[in-house]
Amino acid sequence: MTTEASTILDRVAATIEGRKLANGGDPATSYVSKLFSKGDDAILKKIGEEATELVMAAKDARAAGDAGKVLYECADLWFHSLVLLAQFDLTPQQVLDELARREGVSGIAEKAARPDN
Amino acid sequence: MTTEASTILDRVAATIEGRKLANGGDPATSYVSKLFSKGDDAILKKIGEEATELVMAAKDARAAGDAGKVLYECADLWFHSLVLLAQFDLTPQQVLDELARREGVSGIAEKAARPDN
Amino acid sequence: MTTEASTILDRVAATIEGRKLANGGDPATSYVSKLFSKGDDAILKKIGEEATELVMAAKDARAAGDAGKVLYECADLWFHSLVLLAQFDLTPQQVLDELARREGVSGIAEKAARPDN
Amino acid sequence: MTTEASTILDRVAATIEGRKLANGGDPATSYVSKLFSKGDDAILKKIGEEATELVMAAKDARAAGDAGKVLYECADLWFHSLVLLAQFDLTPQQVLDELARREGVSGIAEKAARPDN
Repeated sequence: MTTEASTILDRVAATIEGRKLANGGDPATSYVSKLFSKGDDAILKKIGEEATELVMAAKDARAAGDAGKVLYECADLWFHSLVLLAQFDLTPQQVLDELARREGVSGIAEKAARPDN
Repeated sequence: MTTEASTILDRVAATIEGRKLANGGDPATSYVSKLFSKGDDAILKKIGEEATELVMAAKDARAAGDAGKVLYECADLWFHSLVLLAQFDLTPQQVLDELARREGVSGIAEKAARPDN
Repeated sequence: MTTEASTILDRVAATIEGRKLANGGDPATSYVSKLFSKGDDAILKKIGEEATELVMAAKDARAAGDAGKVLYECADLWFHSLVLLAQFDLTPQQVLDELARREGVSGIAEKAARPDN
Repeated sequence: MTTEASTILDRVAATIEGRKLANGGDPATSYVSKLFSKGDDAILKKIGEEATELVMAAKDARAAGDAGKVLYECADLWFHSLVLLAQFDLTPQQVLDELARREGVSGIAEKAARPDN
């Protein structure tokens, strides 16, 4: 049986929250605390970098017929997204609620609302 | 009460799965079907584009003191990640399992394992 | 004989400058004028998108043993960099001057000045 | 008087070429040699990272009314583009020739040829 998704995201978010300097996180021993100590730009650079790595992993996966690296890099991208959310005092649940809200909108209406479809 | 995260991700993933051409998705009426019809590169371009938009939204959010756009763009990035996962026949639960697996590794060990900490 | 690089960059920059709305550029007929009419964010999205496409092209080039697409996508990235420079009233020569200035710094000193070497 | 653009790009490209391991470059003392020693993916990650930094710099520049950082980050992006070109045994002149070739195409024809205008 797999662990509940909400539990996982909430737990990772809670761990990340605990790594904030204000919550006792130590940049000398925690990668996430070090990111927080550097501030917005360090986190945003990671978003760009992890997105690039996900793209590269997908290219590799297609060439090698092995999708494992896509999973790994997607996890990396989501993880750093969670760090960014924490940096802005947002929660993964709020992102999920936004995804749920859009599900409520019909696919065609959603599509029509996109400028670059 | 918020909707369960696992339910949301699973439901969005199921919707995306249903938009595959093999599952009857129609590129003429569905944005996601259109992405699938274009293939890997179109989806990967969206990953790069949405990551860039998330970075821009964070910059705007900091300047304006309004984090709402970060939520919206993070949802966009996660949504297109879900499309990419579907394209490789992967599920969000597998990404969450990978995140859970890492939680089991101590923060310091995880940090030590990263090349660019 | 190839055309002088300075002439090419200056000429492309001049063409781009002429596509600004203030200089008579028409978004209905010019791709660049349309970008200018949309403003910073549209141009920045293209930077992120073209960088992603360059990464994808390099992956494809390595797999196919054909580097031509790297050239094409690099040209696309540089072109949109020139649009961004124009948007900030900067010139390609200023970028080249910055590159020349760094050449004057010894490689080791330059390396030492980089945080992520 | 500014230095000729072609001279600068050619000179930087020549310096980068000399940092290849096959040409005696030493990863212990040269940042570029270190990138070459790591291979394609390390260089491509830098393309994604530098593009993200250019986007961030443009956002900062607009907020602060100071475009200097855009110049600096654009130089960084072009520099790493030159490393990528060298990695594929391509030259900046070939990119410039491609830009010149497009200049020969009328703006409207070029626009019409773009899928996402």
